Amino acid sequence: MHTVETLFEPENVVVIGSSKLKEKVGLSSPWLFRNVIYNVKKFFKRKTFVLDLNGKIGLKSFTELSETPDLAVVTLPPKESVAHVEKAAKFGLKAFVIITGGYKDDQRQQLLKIRDEYGVRILGPNTVMGVINTANGLNTTFEKNIMPPKGNIAVVSQSGGVGACLLDWACFYNIGVSKFVFMGDKIDVDDVEILQYLSKDNDTKVICVYMEGVKNGRKFIEETKKIVEEKPIIALKGGITQESAHRAKSHTASMTGSDEIFDAAFKKAGIIRVENIEELMNAALALSKQPPMLGDNIAIVSNVGGPAILAADAVARNGLKLARLSDETRTKIEKLYPGVDATNPIDIIADARADRYRKVLELVLADRNVDGVLVINMLKSCFLEPKDAKVIPEIASKYMDKPVVDVPAGGEDFELIYKVIGRSTVPLYNLPEKGVKALKVLRLYGKIVSGR
Amino acid sequence: MHTVETLFEPENVVVIGSSKLKEKVGLSSPWLFRNVIYNVKKFFKRKTFVLDLNGKIGLKSFTELSETPDLAVVTLPPKESVAHVEKAAKFGLKAFVIITGGYKDDQRQQLLKIRDEYGVRILGPNTVMGVINTANGLNTTFEKNIMPPKGNIAVVSQSGGVGACLLDWACFYNIGVSKFVFMGDKIDVDDVEILQYLSKDNDTKVICVYMEGVKNGRKFIEETKKIVEEKPIIALKGGITQESAHRAKSHTASMTGSDEIFDAAFKKAGIIRVENIEELMNAALALSKQPPMLGDNIAIVSNVGGPAILAADAVARNGLKLARLSDETRTKIEKLYPGVDATNPIDIIADARADRYRKVLELVLADRNVDGVLVINMLKSCFLEPKDAKVIPEIASKYMDKPVVDVPAGGEDFELIYKVIGRSTVPLYNLPEKGVKALKVLRLYGKIVSGR
Repeated sequence: MHTVETLFEPENVVVIGSSKLKEKVGLSSPWLFRNVIYNVKKFFKRKTFVLDLNGKIGLKSFTELSETPDLAVVTLPPKESVAHVEKAAKFGLKAFVIITGGYKDDQRQQLLKIRDEYGVRILGPNTVMGVINTANGLNTTFEKNIMPPKGNIAVVSQSGGVGACLLDWACFYNIGVSKFVFMGDKIDVDDVEILQYLSKDNDTKVICVYMEGVKNGRKFIEETKKIVEEKPIIALKGGITQESAHRAKSHTASMTGSDEIFDAAFKKAGIIRVENIEELMNAALALSKQPPMLGDNIAIVSNVGGPAILAADAVARNGLKLARLSDETRTKIEKLYPGVDATNPIDIIADARADRYRKVLELVLADRNVDGVLVINMLKSCFLEPKDAKVIPEIASKYMDKPVVDVPAGGEDFELIYKVIGRSTVPLYNLPEKGVKALKVLRLYGKIVSGR
Repeated sequence: MHTVETLFEPENVVVIGSSKLKEKVGLSSPWLFRNVIYNVKKFFKRKTFVLDLNGKIGLKSFTELSETPDLAVVTLPPKESVAHVEKAAKFGLKAFVIITGGYKDDQRQQLLKIRDEYGVRILGPNTVMGVINTANGLNTTFEKNIMPPKGNIAVVSQSGGVGACLLDWACFYNIGVSKFVFMGDKIDVDDVEILQYLSKDNDTKVICVYMEGVKNGRKFIEETKKIVEEKPIIALKGGITQESAHRAKSHTASMTGSDEIFDAAFKKAGIIRVENIEELMNAALALSKQPPMLGDNIAIVSNVGGPAILAADAVARNGLKLARLSDETRTKIEKLYPGVDATNPIDIIADARADRYRKVLELVLADRNVDGVLVINMLKSCFLEPKDAKVIPEIASKYMDKPVVDVPAGGEDFELIYKVIGRSTVPLYNLPEKGVKALKVLRLYGKIVSGR
């Protein structure tokens, strides 16, 4: 049996499809075939072949291939797909990414028989978008020119739609990705194997999962438990009610269980659970950039009062604590800035510029009563200039054991600050509540790595 | 006593400040003064005067004014501010927007004495940004060129920072605003009076409030109870914990109470409570564009499976129900599109284009088991084109008693669909969960207007 590595690191790839066949309802079409070819050829740094059932836009049969590809990306309707997977397996291919869906039970069985006979590996069917590896450029998606920036976040999605949304999110919000995997129906390759692969992948630091169900719950918990000691896993679970779980079952044909069972399983496994796509990406961003938080005590440093109060509210709602600053820290801040009340949340007042942020952040981060810091730096209604924000990652990087997140609250404000420090080691969030949730995730991972 | 109307609809305005005085810690500065002048002169459609204590960039004293302005915008430090409010009141001005903060108790008392003696009205002090009226262009903020688009949402913020964030949000995400009021310390004009004014304002359909406390809780509940029968009020409350409430008290010097008290009061008053700035704006958008929802039953129509499952999960989490479509509706849909399972959530499959959306939406909206519809229309991983989205407001507008919200889930996908139907009557949300929350708000308001 081949390993799943070939799915991500093939020497060469063949895209198999038809320039003529189009499903009435379903993905398979000449348009999709051409788009997959376009992306693989554009981004993949190694050799790409094309096999067209109709021989119009590529070779017509395997025998015409000058060498044997490792990986086939299959964009054919179910019947044709099964036949060509068998031919390809016979020809010596090792792994298959099956884009199309709608496979009947007997067709799935045929695919599994081929796997057993030839030791090939199958991702899907119904992966919709397949695989992205930003390191070697492998990109089997059919959205032309969609390629997320390189980074250390891996994303595993059982659903094509949720995966596509996560991919769109990563591209649009510039979130650095290592690997993207669309699992689909998981008839062969399952979550555990993919997670094990990612746990050993040097390009991956954080693993995000969207799942609707697992095949082997016990094994999943056992294996993820080991993985999370090295790398955090964040999960979004779809299908929490009976009705939606039923839909999930027909959607990706996976076993589902009650939401309570999943919740307990995630806790046992040390998987951090989130509630939507934005939270998943926000949590990944925090874990990819900042250290786990080793205590509950948050300091809030802000140039505006109201948003700092909202942050303090979120601290309470998330079961964290407002740090009680040492008298020394308070006195020093208040001496430096008469008019500033250095009770946490610390309102350093609307006229604060870079220098005030620098000095207050230094004092707060050095305070042993503080485990993590939420910075709020608004431009609107304040005197701050975007370039002033540079001091935040500058000071944060001096205290690598305490996480710092930054909240340039708002729309344009967020964008303006993002332009200055968006690529720094400090993650940015557009609202106080999202910044606090990020710290909460860092705290949860802190508990996981320190054995709770 | 003059009415608060002058704060929004003055015949003419004078900006009072100093081209020289700068507070050590605080807002008052020649820069701020100049910026307020810039905005008032740029946007306000009626007459604007400038009074500069130092006589450099405007008149030096009230006697030099050719006529008596209605409204003064005061950007001076507390001491100078009090002195000039008195002079202006004597001179016949009716109302004051006091931008600056840091007023001591005796200075507040002096301001109130002036109010009592001359019948003038005072907004603030510590409003930070003052007032915006998009109808006549009055804009007393000091962020140059910041002006939200015209619309029917009024925003009332006790905090300058939260208000500025809401303002930034409205401008950036193109949310139409009627009035913007920064309440500040509320020594004279309070929430009740402003809400009463807005309830009679023809340009306002929805009222958003950020508050940290109220002066007279009983009166607040009584009055808002009347208002919400005509216009919905959505509230974000800052300071839910003892610690943050303490900070809120020192922030805007208002009475605060326990969070449970506020929660009960909001429920009694029929105010819809939200948890953060984004939810506040999202709720306002829904209420400004769509009718209240008169039942709990949601239909989900989606071209992707996973996001529809997440939407169904959110329906359950928000105490709503998945509509059980009539057999007739289901049969019709399944006959039209073999391969589509019309069990709600309805996955109309990734190859759906405008025509399939149109037909399915027509059938679903006509079904009497359906009270509201959430549409999901992704581009990535689907065959949909942005222009196809036009059918959504087209069909929605035929069923004006049932709310429809649209979710082009993701980053770029949202933006591309927004360009096509962002200004239509259907509100857009970038994630399924946010769309469902919008429907929840419409359901809450449906309960309020129908007497629960």
